[in-house]
This record gives sequence, C-alpha cells and structure tokens, in this order.
Amino acid sequence: MSDLYERAPERGPGLRLHLNENTAGCSPRVLAAMRSVTANQAACYPDYNATLRSCAHWLGVSDDELFLTNGLDEGIYSTAIAWLQRLDDGRPAEAVVVEPAYALFAASAGVVGARLVHVGPRPDFSFPIAETLNAIGPATRVVFVASPANPSGVLVGPEQIRAVASRLPPGAIVFLDEAYGEFAGTSFLSELRSCPNVLLGRTFAKAYGLAAVRAGYLVGAAPLIDRIRTITLPFSVNVFALAAVRAAIDDGDYVDWYVAQVEASRQLIYRACERMGIEYWKSHANFVLVRLGPRAGNVVEGLAARGVYVRDRSAVAGCAGCIRITAGVVEHTEACLVELEALCARG
Amino acid sequence: MSDLYERAPERGPGLRLHLNENTAGCSPRVLAAMRSVTANQAACYPDYNATLRSCAHWLGVSDDELFLTNGLDEGIYSTAIAWLQRLDDGRPAEAVVVEPAYALFAASAGVVGARLVHVGPRPDFSFPIAETLNAIGPATRVVFVASPANPSGVLVGPEQIRAVASRLPPGAIVFLDEAYGEFAGTSFLSELRSCPNVLLGRTFAKAYGLAAVRAGYLVGAAPLIDRIRTITLPFSVNVFALAAVRAAIDDGDYVDWYVAQVEASRQLIYRACERMGIEYWKSHANFVLVRLGPRAGNVVEGLAARGVYVRDRSAVAGCAGCIRITAGVVEHTEACLVELEALCARG
Repeated sequence: MSDLYERAPERGPGLRLHLNENTAGCSPRVLAAMRSVTANQAACYPDYNATLRSCAHWLGVSDDELFLTNGLDEGIYSTAIAWLQRLDDGRPAEAVVVEPAYALFAASAGVVGARLVHVGPRPDFSFPIAETLNAIGPATRVVFVASPANPSGVLVGPEQIRAVASRLPPGAIVFLDEAYGEFAGTSFLSELRSCPNVLLGRTFAKAYGLAAVRAGYLVGAAPLIDRIRTITLPFSVNVFALAAVRAAIDDGDYVDWYVAQVEASRQLIYRACERMGIEYWKSHANFVLVRLGPRAGNVVEGLAARGVYVRDRSAVAGCAGCIRITAGVVEHTEACLVELEALCARG
Repeated sequence: MSDLYERAPERGPGLRLHLNENTAGCSPRVLAAMRSVTANQAACYPDYNATLRSCAHWLGVSDDELFLTNGLDEGIYSTAIAWLQRLDDGRPAEAVVVEPAYALFAASAGVVGARLVHVGPRPDFSFPIAETLNAIGPATRVVFVASPANPSGVLVGPEQIRAVASRLPPGAIVFLDEAYGEFAGTSFLSELRSCPNVLLGRTFAKAYGLAAVRAGYLVGAAPLIDRIRTITLPFSVNVFALAAVRAAIDDGDYVDWYVAQVEASRQLIYRACERMGIEYWKSHANFVLVRLGPRAGNVVEGLAARGVYVRDRSAVAGCAGCIRITAGVVEHTEACLVELEALCARG
C-alpha cells in the first residue's frame, strides 16, 4: 500500500497487544470448522451463496444488502474504487477523513487519486460534528467515520451519523467502520434502512479472532451493495474464511465471553492509569489510548524488551505522547500492566 | 464484478470439469500444513516476509521482484488499478486484450474506465502477433496475454512476448498470465530480467489444487512490483494461503504427478475426439477446447444430467459451438468421455 499505510514492524514471540488482535485466538468451534475443509474443497471455487444467506439471516438483512469481503480492508478499498475515482467533469472526488483514523481510509482514497479532506481531532476525541459538516462539499463522495474510532476508542452516536448523511451531496455516502463494534455493544445496523447513503463495514477480525483469516462484510441499501459488487473481485474470500464465518455466527457464546474479557481488561487499564496518574480515554473498543508524554517511545521499547508489545501512536493526529494498549484476555492485560507499572515507577 | 464477468452457475454434486479446477484436490502435505494453523495464528496478522522469501528463493528471483496476491485475480485487478487509470492528460488509458481471453482482464480494466482494444482470435487460435502489434498505440498501458491461453490452450512463444514488449510506449507493460503454465512445462520466468516491462502472473490455483485458497503471485522487475505494492492491500493473502504456499513449494512430487495425469488426460480427449470426428485444439493447459457445433448446448446439459459438468464456451470470441473440458485425473477424464461418447452416438 502507499506510503500512507505501513504494516507495523513484525515482532518476535511475546505478548502481542500492539495490533488490536484477539489475544485468545479464534473459538475452538471455528478452528474445527476451518480444519474440516477438505483437499477437494481447497481445489474448487467455493459456493459463496450459502454463506452469504446464512450471514444475511444472522444480521437480519436481505441477501442483496450484504457483501462479504476479504477482510474489512477490502470493503474500504472497494468503497474507494467505487466512489472516489475522478468525477465525470474531471475534478478529483473528495474523501473526508475524520482524524485520528484508520490509515487505510486515506491510503485507499489515494489509490484512485481522490483529494483528502482531513478533519482534525478534538482534544477529547469527541466526534467533531460541526467540523465534519463543514468539510463536506459538492465534490465529496465518501465521508469515512469509525465508531468506535481507532485509536481513541470513542463512540460516534447514531444522530451524528444521520446528521452527516443528511448533509451529503447526491451520490455520496458515509462509510461507517464498525470494526470494533462488538466491543461497544451497539451498532448502526438497525438504522441502516432509514439511511440509504450509509455503508456499514464490519469484520470477524477482532471480536471473533479471525484477523489472519480475512473475513469482513459490508451492509447497506441494495444499490450501494450492487455498486460494490460491480467493481469487486468475484472470488476474494477464501474457503477457510467462508467456513469460519458460518461457524462463527453459530458460536455467539464465544464472542460474549470475549467481549466480557475485553470490558474487564479496559477497567484494569483505567485503574492502573489512575494509580499512575496517567491520562487515558474511556474506550468502547478492545484497546485503550494512554498518554505517557515524551517517554512514550521509551516505554514502548522498554515493554518490548520485556516481551510485551504495545503501539506507539505519537505520530497520529491528536495523539502526541500516546500509546495504545490492546485490551484482550484479562490475564494478558494483567501481565502487561505489571510491566508497565514497573517501568513507569522506574522512569 | 461487472457484467463482463459472471461466476459460472453453481452446480450440484458431480464431476466438476467446467472450471479448470484440479480434480485431485490439493496435496495431502499442503492440506496438513493448512490444518496446522492454530487458533492464535488465525487471530494475528501474519508474517508475510517468511513466505515471500521462501517463494522468491524457489523461483530464483529476489524478494523485490515478487508479490504474493489473493489469487492471481488480485494480481490482474491490481495491474488494472496501477496502470489503467485515466492518463495525466485526461484521456482514458487503453488495455489491449488478445481474445479469447480470461474475462477478468476486461472486467478489471473496466473498473477504472480504461478503453478496451480487443484483438480478435485467429481461426486456429495461434497468437495474432501482427494484429496485437497494430492494436498498440500511445495510450496503451497494458497488453493482456495468457499463455497457455484460455479456453484454447494455445501457447504463446517467448519471441512473441518480446516482440509485443518491445513495441510498447514508455510506462506500458505486458501482463502475461501463466495461470496454466505448469501444464505447459515452459515459462517466461527465465526471460523476465531481459524484459523489464513484462509482469508475469502465476497461481497455485490450478496445478497445485488451491483455487479456493486464493494464492497467486506476480513476478517482474522491481519497479513494476513496487508499483503494485503501493496500490495493493497489505493483508490480502490469508494465513491458510501462506501456509499452503510454503508447503506447496516443498512438494514438487505432487505437481509432477498431477501434470502427468493432465497430459495423459489430454491425450485421452484427443483420441476420443478423433474417434468421434470432432474438431479439437491441442492444449498446453488442463483443459481441451472441443467444437461440437450447434449441439454444444445440448451436450453440456446432457452431460450435466449425467452428473458431468463441462463448460459451454459458445459465446466466447472464436469459440462458436465449442465446449471446454477440464483435463484432470485420468479416471475422471475417462468417466467424462464415456458419457460424452454415449451422448454423441445417440445425437
């Protein structure tokens, strides 16, 4: 991907709390389903329809309101290809990106030469609704919003999404990224039918522990999904991802358990920050943004030396001096916090 | 994908000889490697570098001359995104497609609004070199060539690829699709370093039996690969595909066995056609194109009724009245030919 998006450096063995992965791994039932794929199934182009129908039924939408993607990343990328190519009059389309934001929004928009309109963050990371509305112009074709946002973990209310959607010019959409939605316990899904210009992106990567399996989906009005379908590859999702999706939607207990672990872990991180007098933001996702100030880089490296990986987010808009800690299984969070408190006490 | 590309209708259980799949399934060693993926590996963004390095070493190229893709389809799509967007002066870029061709060439070019320049087939499907050279103009950015071609199975000689490459305007490339290259026993790979404007696409889908796992790759001069990298998603290839690739390149015996089965199957199809007085084309791939004339559609449906699926290619340029039969494991080919001969004897 472009210079706007870099994979995080690969790390050695250790406690991975730097990429908002599921620290428990996927559920045993999902793993068993993936391991049941046969040699012949690996060799034959798979049946997408059965999985699509199951997933649509699970979400309570119709088949033509849903599109399965090779990770939510492909959903973002396809959105850029579908909506952000040069306009008919030759001007570049504009993409509004509410910062801090997932780097792939801007990187995908850049692939088709869209003009980026960045909306800066507020100090408390609350959604900058007035600034976002101001950023919308006649050439706007996509407004990228994440809820919960990354790396702040802040939730964007449905009334704010609706306000943005109602301000858009014809043919433009809100791309609402709910990659971390399961941890928030709320979703815009039920509002979609009253907002035909909102395209919702979700994923099995985070709450379901399938980041490496690449399974995401887009939900929205049928004309939006149809537009995505016309420009997206027909066989992007592989047979293991399809098997995983079918098993995952039948295994709600696993996700309930994991979401509870994440909630408990967030509380542990908040308490540790309070003990240390460190600023943090209440998160609705599986990570917590923590402001360490100038020592942030040293702390990240100090933790890495002890086998605990967290992410330095100092370079992200509004996040100077901040690190982001994945909140996963409680015992993993506890192990991280022991090291963090030891390091910060020394510093 | 656009109207230019339609998934074949999904078929019930039966002998699948309609999609050029590997009829043996992937090798047991590859299946075992995929089944060894753990719950934690499923949850964590994978290490691409190790697989890339192994694959580059296997191919005898350097790491920066290779790019792993989510099936070769993604390689074709990324090529279109990278080279076929509107030119700086506002004109559409042109893609030359030598017909009959894989439908995804034109479909991918269409995604970014490129102008398609189709080169029609010769009656014997030999490579239309003069016509292709004539089709190249100043706005040409990609010439799509497949060798062996689909559905004819005809091989394109390296001297013809070089001739096309040497005629291209600056910044343009030949995209050479060798999806079926293992069955031909020859590759343009060794010529690439003397042709810095040829991008080679290959796949583990066919000879390795991994169509549903989505693992392909592009090989070419480092600047071409770098251009692909800047516009392609960073996590397109999933962890099962990575495991499969590493195991597949260590299991040459399986491919040797399968390629021999395909060669024997092609001979069986040729002999059957000769017995029945049916026209066919000698193929270098895992399929044979056979001309049945006006009865083609009926024969395809008649075979389907007997649980044998072959593909009606009558609608493809130059293929009126033709069906395409996948040549896989010998016993599968024999089962198909028994039914085909019975049907044709009746008709």
